[in-house]
Amino acid sequence: MNKKIKMGLVGGGPGSFIGPVHFRAAIMDGHIELVCGAFDSDPEKSKASAGIYHISSDRAYGTWKEMMEKEAALPDDVRMDMVAITTPNHLHFPIAMEALDKGFNVVCDKPVTISHDEAVKLARKVDETGLLFALTHTYTGYPMVKEARHLVSKNIIGPVRRIVVEYPQGWLSTPLEKEGNQQAAWRSDPRYSGPGGCLGDIGTHAENLAEYITGLQISELCADINTFVPGRALDDDIAVLLRFDGGARGVLWSTQIAAGEENDLNIRVYGEKGGLAWRQQEPNSLVMRMHNEPAQVLRAGKNHEYLSEIARWNLRVPGGHPEGYIEAFANIYKNVAHALNQRKENLPVDPAYLDFPTVHDGVRGMRFIEKVIESAGSKDKWLKF
Amino acid sequence: MNKKIKMGLVGGGPGSFIGPVHFRAAIMDGHIELVCGAFDSDPEKSKASAGIYHISSDRAYGTWKEMMEKEAALPDDVRMDMVAITTPNHLHFPIAMEALDKGFNVVCDKPVTISHDEAVKLARKVDETGLLFALTHTYTGYPMVKEARHLVSKNIIGPVRRIVVEYPQGWLSTPLEKEGNQQAAWRSDPRYSGPGGCLGDIGTHAENLAEYITGLQISELCADINTFVPGRALDDDIAVLLRFDGGARGVLWSTQIAAGEENDLNIRVYGEKGGLAWRQQEPNSLVMRMHNEPAQVLRAGKNHEYLSEIARWNLRVPGGHPEGYIEAFANIYKNVAHALNQRKENLPVDPAYLDFPTVHDGVRGMRFIEKVIESAGSKDKWLKF
Amino acid sequence: MNKKIKMGLVGGGPGSFIGPVHFRAAIMDGHIELVCGAFDSDPEKSKASAGIYHISSDRAYGTWKEMMEKEAALPDDVRMDMVAITTPNHLHFPIAMEALDKGFNVVCDKPVTISHDEAVKLARKVDETGLLFALTHTYTGYPMVKEARHLVSKNIIGPVRRIVVEYPQGWLSTPLEKEGNQQAAWRSDPRYSGPGGCLGDIGTHAENLAEYITGLQISELCADINTFVPGRALDDDIAVLLRFDGGARGVLWSTQIAAGEENDLNIRVYGEKGGLAWRQQEPNSLVMRMHNEPAQVLRAGKNHEYLSEIARWNLRVPGGHPEGYIEAFANIYKNVAHALNQRKENLPVDPAYLDFPTVHDGVRGMRFIEKVIESAGSKDKWLKF
Amino acid sequence: MNKKIKMGLVGGGPGSFIGPVHFRAAIMDGHIELVCGAFDSDPEKSKASAGIYHISSDRAYGTWKEMMEKEAALPDDVRMDMVAITTPNHLHFPIAMEALDKGFNVVCDKPVTISHDEAVKLARKVDETGLLFALTHTYTGYPMVKEARHLVSKNIIGPVRRIVVEYPQGWLSTPLEKEGNQQAAWRSDPRYSGPGGCLGDIGTHAENLAEYITGLQISELCADINTFVPGRALDDDIAVLLRFDGGARGVLWSTQIAAGEENDLNIRVYGEKGGLAWRQQEPNSLVMRMHNEPAQVLRAGKNHEYLSEIARWNLRVPGGHPEGYIEAFANIYKNVAHALNQRKENLPVDPAYLDFPTVHDGVRGMRFIEKVIESAGSKDKWLKF
Repeated sequence: MNKKIKMGLVGGGPGSFIGPVHFRAAIMDGHIELVCGAFDSDPEKSKASAGIYHISSDRAYGTWKEMMEKEAALPDDVRMDMVAITTPNHLHFPIAMEALDKGFNVVCDKPVTISHDEAVKLARKVDETGLLFALTHTYTGYPMVKEARHLVSKNIIGPVRRIVVEYPQGWLSTPLEKEGNQQAAWRSDPRYSGPGGCLGDIGTHAENLAEYITGLQISELCADINTFVPGRALDDDIAVLLRFDGGARGVLWSTQIAAGEENDLNIRVYGEKGGLAWRQQEPNSLVMRMHNEPAQVLRAGKNHEYLSEIARWNLRVPGGHPEGYIEAFANIYKNVAHALNQRKENLPVDPAYLDFPTVHDGVRGMRFIEKVIESAGSKDKWLKF
Repeated sequence: MNKKIKMGLVGGGPGSFIGPVHFRAAIMDGHIELVCGAFDSDPEKSKASAGIYHISSDRAYGTWKEMMEKEAALPDDVRMDMVAITTPNHLHFPIAMEALDKGFNVVCDKPVTISHDEAVKLARKVDETGLLFALTHTYTGYPMVKEARHLVSKNIIGPVRRIVVEYPQGWLSTPLEKEGNQQAAWRSDPRYSGPGGCLGDIGTHAENLAEYITGLQISELCADINTFVPGRALDDDIAVLLRFDGGARGVLWSTQIAAGEENDLNIRVYGEKGGLAWRQQEPNSLVMRMHNEPAQVLRAGKNHEYLSEIARWNLRVPGGHPEGYIEAFANIYKNVAHALNQRKENLPVDPAYLDFPTVHDGVRGMRFIEKVIESAGSKDKWLKF
Repeated sequence: MNKKIKMGLVGGGPGSFIGPVHFRAAIMDGHIELVCGAFDSDPEKSKASAGIYHISSDRAYGTWKEMMEKEAALPDDVRMDMVAITTPNHLHFPIAMEALDKGFNVVCDKPVTISHDEAVKLARKVDETGLLFALTHTYTGYPMVKEARHLVSKNIIGPVRRIVVEYPQGWLSTPLEKEGNQQAAWRSDPRYSGPGGCLGDIGTHAENLAEYITGLQISELCADINTFVPGRALDDDIAVLLRFDGGARGVLWSTQIAAGEENDLNIRVYGEKGGLAWRQQEPNSLVMRMHNEPAQVLRAGKNHEYLSEIARWNLRVPGGHPEGYIEAFANIYKNVAHALNQRKENLPVDPAYLDFPTVHDGVRGMRFIEKVIESAGSKDKWLKF
Repeated sequence: MNKKIKMGLVGGGPGSFIGPVHFRAAIMDGHIELVCGAFDSDPEKSKASAGIYHISSDRAYGTWKEMMEKEAALPDDVRMDMVAITTPNHLHFPIAMEALDKGFNVVCDKPVTISHDEAVKLARKVDETGLLFALTHTYTGYPMVKEARHLVSKNIIGPVRRIVVEYPQGWLSTPLEKEGNQQAAWRSDPRYSGPGGCLGDIGTHAENLAEYITGLQISELCADINTFVPGRALDDDIAVLLRFDGGARGVLWSTQIAAGEENDLNIRVYGEKGGLAWRQQEPNSLVMRMHNEPAQVLRAGKNHEYLSEIARWNLRVPGGHPEGYIEAFANIYKNVAHALNQRKENLPVDPAYLDFPTVHDGVRGMRFIEKVIESAGSKDKWLKF
């Protein structure tokens, strides 16, 4: 790579969870540098963050709109190449649209928007502009998730029959949103979060993971949605029966009231010949069970020759040195950076670099949210996706 | 206990899986002795099994009917006290009815019958005769399952919100029933197995486990049933959304085509304050997660004073010496033996001895089978249980 | 098998831990029946145990000597075939010698005696009489331990280089022997326990396990012995560097003051091509790691065709139904019963039946105890075994 | 923090393993920027690395000596603040001495030098100059290791009795150093590696981890050293009995021929009241076992209020998002950066920032290497440390 990719950050101010994760993920491989930001909805706080992020104070903007305008006016080799959007959900759409209009590539947190309509419009915009748009469904950035996808695609476990994907959390077991927790507050408020609570926050991760690994798309679903904590404005628990193209059947459930759980996202996929199992909390192992054979534990490790090229490309260190959540996140940024670099050089982009979630995954995610809600309110059993 | 309980066995002949398990479970604690049997549908093979089981050859009968008649004619202190029914499902009902009519207590394998109607009739007969009837939903015999039930009943984890119970197996990933496997053959044939395949064979275990641990009953369900192996006559995969009395929601899925899985029955129960997790393949650990605290791993061990009395009564050895499937099975027999002994002595029966699944659990199990099938064929979403 | 083997039991009275384990292990497969016993050092308590074990009251003897004499005087088809010795260690030798003299086969708990001298004498007696003598190093009864031995013997992991065997317990972290705990009391008293505390009680299990699985014998050792609990008369913690015939090196450590541990016996064996790992607390899995390949998890299961014949012979149920400690114990009794039966029939004994620890393993165990103590007190580093 | 810390890197050229890890660890939190480097022993390759690391080409130096000189001549606000030394071991000493002489702070890979003498000299130099010197015993950078140290220091598990620390790897099971593997080659050559093979490469990590967590120092040791792969010039396997100040006893073993193992560094520490267990390959869990209580699983998570402040300071994300090896490494850099920043500001340095391994740990590590080798060659059993 010739030069570092220059990034602007929207979000990441005081109290932010995901902003600093994007920041670390972006810079850790040394190919991206943060050059500007609109870090907070409060312009003063935003500007004050320049020091925290060690950027020039004149590029810590008061608002994201100001950032878009002023950056767009800078010379080519100075202005940001891409913007990372790490705000609450309701701002993803306007910021991303503006960024694309101004010619900036985008990395956006999920869910991509707060409605399917917005997502469709955004996808159209991305396609029109031809700019890169990456959606941080982080979990597909894990090397062993990529290995799982690879094994399914190579038919190692045979045609897929059953899929079970879970995402239990416990942190919203109590009405935390009423106790001053900023993360809980916006996530539980439909104005900022969109129509899905647990559903949008983590349910879509589960949906994305299942489709990514199996390469199959949901064709029908039947959903139950619950709000267990009294007074909560959005769902905090979902369970969905799934049917996939080609006949595979699935169960997806996700909750934020599983007291005591952290982020136990996990998936099992069973095919005619074998099965795969992966858990986010121990992400460096992938269990492969072939029918009538001992289970095998495939391990993340840049040196492991039994792994696919795509898994190894997304690894940094030899086996046994665990890579974690930030590294999975960083794989999205690493691939975006390499892809942008090749585009700058007018080179054809290596497909390995394009292995990140796109705005079209975002559209599917928003459809998933809306269909699950529709199904939950319906007396009919199966709803076409 | 004054004297050993005398048992007759139906089933357990050559090629049998569950018969020898019942046998070992019955005798291992030294309170039950096998005195007679009708071991095989082939009278010659049945009689030839006398030697295998080391019983008197004149009490290895040609048929179970003969056994019932001849044993009933023996003197009180000679004839069997109870009969263990370990045949394919279709024979449970006629054998149990005959046994009860002749005054014998019964331990019966599950599912209790091959229809809800039969189950209701049988339950009525049990109630009329006042005899003991135990149903071998083995998994509720595990000490740590009893501990889980105890913890829920003491409100340790708070009111239950979400339940997830799974029972994946992989052995029927291929059409084994057409390849001479006797166990697969009868299980896949509705004449011997009843209307449920995977559903009746293991799905009911999952249903029973969920209701036993939580003390809650299913009130509504919404089911998907599948047969993945071409030509198979019964289902080999189910997934069900559940609603329980009191508002808890559940997911139950079970399959016999999860290639590579053995018997990964497991359950997670989340309440307002904490959660519990248990896996049959590592049955001596029970994970308890209280909100915002480190998870605790409760371990089976007769010496562990932190366990409930009921768990410790159902243990044999100090912690760290694993007790397994046969011991869980044996707990049902142990409790039956103690209960029968107290009845013989005209003593009130200790409630701890009556902590085994009954014919009424069998009735619920048969209703579950029929309701899941009904739901799977229905366009309506929720079906009252 | 033609007839049940008739067993007498020494030990197993009120408060006994290991006596009832022997009892259950002996009877659970249906090939052995308990016919007599001397259950307690108190003759009254011993006789009172007849009811507990459901044996004829005239065969619950006041003392083991009385049992030996009276049983020897009974007719062939009535008297016991074998005696199980489950007393504190100091009685193993006199009881076993007497039993052999009277023509009874013996199953004896470990350590075999309280001195190497005694062990040598006993071994000589066993060899002279030609009777069977089984020593209950239970852990080698686990099917996956037998599988590990099989894999090493077939050179699957290549010549062995490094062995690590551990047996941590925590129950003696406090001076339990002074607080009325009967099990702790005799184990901490050299008069009953012999010269080794932790060393004899569990250290020898570790030594036996390592030699059994690898087929290698210890040639030199260098030991550290500790007594951490003030006032304790025997060691409660050992650590030993080992050298084996053929060049393999080992570490063995064992303790009874590892607060919080139950019975975490475990072993890892590394050869030139791969390694094996097994833990007693999850005994149904054996991890095999081949160099540069994913680890494989071999699982206990009578149906698993990838397992050796010897492992499957020592299993009872299909994979995924855990077999535990009592079953491992029962494998010793099952094999003894089959071997005795073949001897009775004047048949050559199947080698698979003779796969249990013998008096010669007991001699090695006593030598291990004495050599470790000698090494611990020596300034020289390596001691020939 | 006012300004980024400016770092120079020695090592990290093509084929390097640990150089890029230092680089990512240094930059990922956004407080350090790479400004210069001497990346390879080949000056051409070194200069060519400017592009890879996105630094100005005039600051990619041909040699580390050139780097020291030229950087020293730059103005204060331009020249590097610190240098990261990631070369083979034999260069640590001369580079570090030169850096300190020139006034640069140092982060150095381990082992600190190739002899105890060198280490002592270096420590004296560090003390004289008053500059910061951090040694990357990475594993003490893990938050749950810090939590373990905290729990021991607070006497939660009581006075320590037994310590077991292991570091098995398998990658050197074959003579990889003769097959063109650069990492294996220098590690197996005493000219580059120093007197220890496995001992220096990973054995010292185990020693450092044990002393760090327990706060105890080794007082005596008794060692066995082996070279299993024929023709290898250094040890590839060690086992050591340890005695600690205050009476605790330990076992340390480490090997690079444990075929199939990756980096299974792990430690167990048992005190009078409880025990702790931690494994590097699943670094986000710390198991705490209190005597007679269920084990507790403490989990890494910036949000977990039950963790100590020191553990939480060294975490980046909420529980359940795994942090790995690079983050552990980054904790050393993060703390160094904060400490340097406070020094620049003439502020007293927060003790939390100084919680990284120092040159004095390096001196102990070198003594450990030399004493283990001495012990292995001695007939005397215990050697004073």
